[in-house]
Amino acid sequence: MQIGMIGLGRMGASMVTRLLRGGHDCVVHDQAPEGIARLVALGATGAATLPQFVETLKAPRAVWLMVPAAAVDALLEQLTPLLNAGDIVIDGGNSHYHDDLRRTADLAAANIAHVDVGTSGGVAGLDRGYCLMIGGGSESVQHLAPVFATLAPGAGTVAATPGRRAGTGTADQGWLHCGPHGAGHFVKMVHNGIEYGLMAAYAEGLNILHHANIGLRQHAVDAETTPLREPAHYQYELNLPDIAEVWRRGSVIGSWLLDLTAAALAGDPTLAGYEGRISDSGEGRWTVQAAIDEAVPAPVLSAALYARFGSRGDADFANRVQSAMRHEFGGHLEKPAAGGPSGT
Amino acid sequence: MQIGMIGLGRMGASMVTRLLRGGHDCVVHDQAPEGIARLVALGATGAATLPQFVETLKAPRAVWLMVPAAAVDALLEQLTPLLNAGDIVIDGGNSHYHDDLRRTADLAAANIAHVDVGTSGGVAGLDRGYCLMIGGGSESVQHLAPVFATLAPGAGTVAATPGRRAGTGTADQGWLHCGPHGAGHFVKMVHNGIEYGLMAAYAEGLNILHHANIGLRQHAVDAETTPLREPAHYQYELNLPDIAEVWRRGSVIGSWLLDLTAAALAGDPTLAGYEGRISDSGEGRWTVQAAIDEAVPAPVLSAALYARFGSRGDADFANRVQSAMRHEFGGHLEKPAAGGPSGT
Amino acid sequence: MQIGMIGLGRMGASMVTRLLRGGHDCVVHDQAPEGIARLVALGATGAATLPQFVETLKAPRAVWLMVPAAAVDALLEQLTPLLNAGDIVIDGGNSHYHDDLRRTADLAAANIAHVDVGTSGGVAGLDRGYCLMIGGGSESVQHLAPVFATLAPGAGTVAATPGRRAGTGTADQGWLHCGPHGAGHFVKMVHNGIEYGLMAAYAEGLNILHHANIGLRQHAVDAETTPLREPAHYQYELNLPDIAEVWRRGSVIGSWLLDLTAAALAGDPTLAGYEGRISDSGEGRWTVQAAIDEAVPAPVLSAALYARFGSRGDADFANRVQSAMRHEFGGHLEKPAAGGPSGT
Amino acid sequence: MQIGMIGLGRMGASMVTRLLRGGHDCVVHDQAPEGIARLVALGATGAATLPQFVETLKAPRAVWLMVPAAAVDALLEQLTPLLNAGDIVIDGGNSHYHDDLRRTADLAAANIAHVDVGTSGGVAGLDRGYCLMIGGGSESVQHLAPVFATLAPGAGTVAATPGRRAGTGTADQGWLHCGPHGAGHFVKMVHNGIEYGLMAAYAEGLNILHHANIGLRQHAVDAETTPLREPAHYQYELNLPDIAEVWRRGSVIGSWLLDLTAAALAGDPTLAGYEGRISDSGEGRWTVQAAIDEAVPAPVLSAALYARFGSRGDADFANRVQSAMRHEFGGHLEKPAAGGPSGT
Repeated sequence: MQIGMIGLGRMGASMVTRLLRGGHDCVVHDQAPEGIARLVALGATGAATLPQFVETLKAPRAVWLMVPAAAVDALLEQLTPLLNAGDIVIDGGNSHYHDDLRRTADLAAANIAHVDVGTSGGVAGLDRGYCLMIGGGSESVQHLAPVFATLAPGAGTVAATPGRRAGTGTADQGWLHCGPHGAGHFVKMVHNGIEYGLMAAYAEGLNILHHANIGLRQHAVDAETTPLREPAHYQYELNLPDIAEVWRRGSVIGSWLLDLTAAALAGDPTLAGYEGRISDSGEGRWTVQAAIDEAVPAPVLSAALYARFGSRGDADFANRVQSAMRHEFGGHLEKPAAGGPSGT
Repeated sequence: MQIGMIGLGRMGASMVTRLLRGGHDCVVHDQAPEGIARLVALGATGAATLPQFVETLKAPRAVWLMVPAAAVDALLEQLTPLLNAGDIVIDGGNSHYHDDLRRTADLAAANIAHVDVGTSGGVAGLDRGYCLMIGGGSESVQHLAPVFATLAPGAGTVAATPGRRAGTGTADQGWLHCGPHGAGHFVKMVHNGIEYGLMAAYAEGLNILHHANIGLRQHAVDAETTPLREPAHYQYELNLPDIAEVWRRGSVIGSWLLDLTAAALAGDPTLAGYEGRISDSGEGRWTVQAAIDEAVPAPVLSAALYARFGSRGDADFANRVQSAMRHEFGGHLEKPAAGGPSGT
Repeated sequence: MQIGMIGLGRMGASMVTRLLRGGHDCVVHDQAPEGIARLVALGATGAATLPQFVETLKAPRAVWLMVPAAAVDALLEQLTPLLNAGDIVIDGGNSHYHDDLRRTADLAAANIAHVDVGTSGGVAGLDRGYCLMIGGGSESVQHLAPVFATLAPGAGTVAATPGRRAGTGTADQGWLHCGPHGAGHFVKMVHNGIEYGLMAAYAEGLNILHHANIGLRQHAVDAETTPLREPAHYQYELNLPDIAEVWRRGSVIGSWLLDLTAAALAGDPTLAGYEGRISDSGEGRWTVQAAIDEAVPAPVLSAALYARFGSRGDADFANRVQSAMRHEFGGHLEKPAAGGPSGT
Repeated sequence: MQIGMIGLGRMGASMVTRLLRGGHDCVVHDQAPEGIARLVALGATGAATLPQFVETLKAPRAVWLMVPAAAVDALLEQLTPLLNAGDIVIDGGNSHYHDDLRRTADLAAANIAHVDVGTSGGVAGLDRGYCLMIGGGSESVQHLAPVFATLAPGAGTVAATPGRRAGTGTADQGWLHCGPHGAGHFVKMVHNGIEYGLMAAYAEGLNILHHANIGLRQHAVDAETTPLREPAHYQYELNLPDIAEVWRRGSVIGSWLLDLTAAALAGDPTLAGYEGRISDSGEGRWTVQAAIDEAVPAPVLSAALYARFGSRGDADFANRVQSAMRHEFGGHLEKPAAGGPSGT
């Protein structure tokens, strides 16, 4: 079927490519002409301007937005007046589901439908397919089913879940109508919250393995330094690439994230190319805020989120407060950074 | 090759079965005669007593222990005097690696070798194979390689890691000599620490989805109850079995634990058969304690561990302390448990 | 000066009493006539209805609301039409500062001023005075200064802060104009977030002392139970009331919360009168949500908040998910609750 | 009475000074002659060598050690052979209570008693007195009571705890015989664990106040940056010294640590003199490790501990792992450090 895509970044461009491969008719637009050109070369129809984009699409139009969450409102302000009753706007980016609810109401005034699609899969999605979590009206979702089916992985080689009746819905094809407006981004939000937790769990574990040789180093003997009680317990020089690799087979912690970690470590066991400033694009935050609204404990997901904040230096003032307190009550002076890990 | 197995519980029995299938000669012993009988029926040689067990094995003996960590020392006290120089004791259970170091030294006095093997795979390991993390002397590990190769999954259908040179060691066969004595259980310890974190991440996320309908319920209006500011944001009745299923395909959070979760939810979407008292067998604790010795932050792994403690009621006194404080400063009385979640 | 008070619960009634003692003219209203009567007996002027209340106050009126956060909007809907330009509404309860901003704008349309006052002090405030954190326009705050000065503790016997110039503002009198609208409740919100953290820190520590005798008990030996490695390390039967008492003198952790804890423990060392269901009235939640908006790590404040949620059973589904996972991968069955703490 | 003190650093020297003021006869030794000289000037008897120190003391000797935990064993190795049966060694530093148990046994072989004293009070203790938490045999503790009574604050101006019977023991004098050997350091260990939690709670809260102006700044619009949804909510430029000051009067969170924080902020509202590398001297670690042995949740105390580790860069490898994962699945590149806080 015909589908329009606005936003041809990493994700948008790959999704159009997958849709073209699946035989769909794609009309594409982006602020960057070279992004359009790349996809036209693959068979898409390019549109240099928004009005041209809308004109090229046949009514009822299906317009998929794949832009940063912070850019959606400005885009809709330009786009909405060009659309007609019966058209469908699909937000496939990382919008907050609160915004879906607001935008749904705004668009409904013009009889334009809104569908929110949480999209997971990353750069590998082009070949693996994208996991799609969808919210909105049933009619719109049904109308777009061919697009979802192409973007999603399908059943593939993933084994059926024991105890699950076959053919019940589309979940085992990799796409799911999760519920009414906002439900898609709500589920995707929590999905990403979980993702943060999983990533941090592996990262913490690998960090513990990385420091398993701490008993081999000398330590200061002073009142500001905790002695390592049993150096003999920390004499291991472990091969992290091998360990990540062995865990990929048969262990309880096998996962796609582990596969990726093994690949990163195979490329560089020290990960020296990274500084460790971990970005976040919002869903992890919103997940925790939702948990708190619901009065549901989310200690793991929160800890993972805070590790990201901390990696970017946002705990600094709090740390200075504590150093100042220690100075006040104990006359403790800060120890300067040393070569090895501190305080051990 | 010939291998002796002591401890024919869930794990031990399955491992013997896999070894028999792989053509190995297994001598088995357990306190429970019926455990022995079941494996004799599959081709193992049974030994009703420890002396008989040792006698049946040809020197140099390879004796694999698969018993609860708390039972190893008592067993070794009986077993060691029966063994000879050159024999190998393999501890495949969940021993603390500190104990490996101690036992290695004790056994070395009699020229008996100790090998520690962290074994992951659970009940599925019989068919999938077990991920083996091994510590000890190279000679012993090399001698036991045929056993490890059979127990491990092998390369199987798991894709090769991009950037990893093929044929470098055994990690991509699912078993790995991690380092000297204790290294196997050290790596397995951290593996399980990670496992706790992963499990809790999924569990927290699913709990947030589970409570996404909280806006549909009435809430008390009093000074002890936090009002839900936006009931309209929490109107979702989500289908958890479908959501777990859709995440299995193409998403970033796909994993074997997710597969199992999907299976559990397919069986019972409410998980009503569980009370939620989560046991722990020690490795998660030791992982955090090691992190602290190393001065490595492990907030996610700790939070996951504490969720288990809390699920068993071990925060109760701390909770009472806080209720008492609230009463002291604010005259607050505890609210009784209600039907729905509290404080919202 | 004259001040009107609506809401004569625990806090409101005590504050009126303190104001009366300070020589102020108080007009009081509450839904419960007996609340009014009690304060009339102390010298206040009672008003049975809102219109009567407003009529009794001289313009420009100062109307202090001391009602649950969830009741403020409904009250303002009735009250606002009765007020005149130049009147001041003071919200001394635990409103979310977002609501202050909205209400400020709404009231401004009628030229009515809004002042938000975070009030700390609990039931002891009647005698100790209340710590007041104030947001709003300078003119209103200055107008109300006599009321704030009476409610606040004054410099009292608290030692001056070294390095602080005397007579700089009112902070050392116990009340502070923190900033524009919402700033009072913002600072109070964070104050309560900190309070949660402090309370939980004491509670966790006391719980660790409470279980210091764990080595004296028998433990199960099975694969679902972590053995206690060194029972000899946990043989202490500690006297918690004495310990809380000794910490009150000279230690780094002395505080008013500790004083209250010592009192609670002096009354009942086991705190058997509490079930440990810890309520929360919102500020701890909003503090964490603000931290997340600001990308500031708040792991301690979050952990304290989640302990409250968990104490009310809101982790139950997450716990069941984890028990289900353990059953799926390891065949583990849940252990029933025993007399002592579990899993040790 | 006569008391010997070894270790005349910040704490040891102040304690001797307080003892001298209290009329005790102090014999002092340190590796640094100038430390000895300073106290001799105040009336102490100096001893340049250990043998001279021991000789100067009358039997049964009371030898108080006030040295870094990592230096105690080496000191005892030299000291013990010089002592006689009936002498008492008091460890007033921050030793791990496990070491107390071991040293008690070692000294008992020579009929020398061991007393462990957890000492809190910091540099202010000279004037305020020290809170003493004591473990050991009753006879030794009773013998040393005059020393404890002088070092401790006494009842002072701290109000009696309501509900506590007066004259029950010494806790309300600021010293307490907590239990058998190790109990003093066990209670002090948990005391410091609580201290970490309290400090971090204040620090996190102040950090949230510090960033309350985040809405006044520009933010990037890209897929790696979470948009700040409501800049209008974060427009506050708060005066932290004033806020810390106002909280000192009448609020629920008043404490000695808050007093110190107010003093630090009064000196420099930005705390620019600190880098924020927070040391730890071990007790916080051991507290968490004890909590885990006891299966008691300690999420707040752990989070506070990890904040210290993180402040010293010990999460770096874990952070790099997560950046690497993000690059692998999403092609995300790290954002460089900017002037303001990141990711918002």
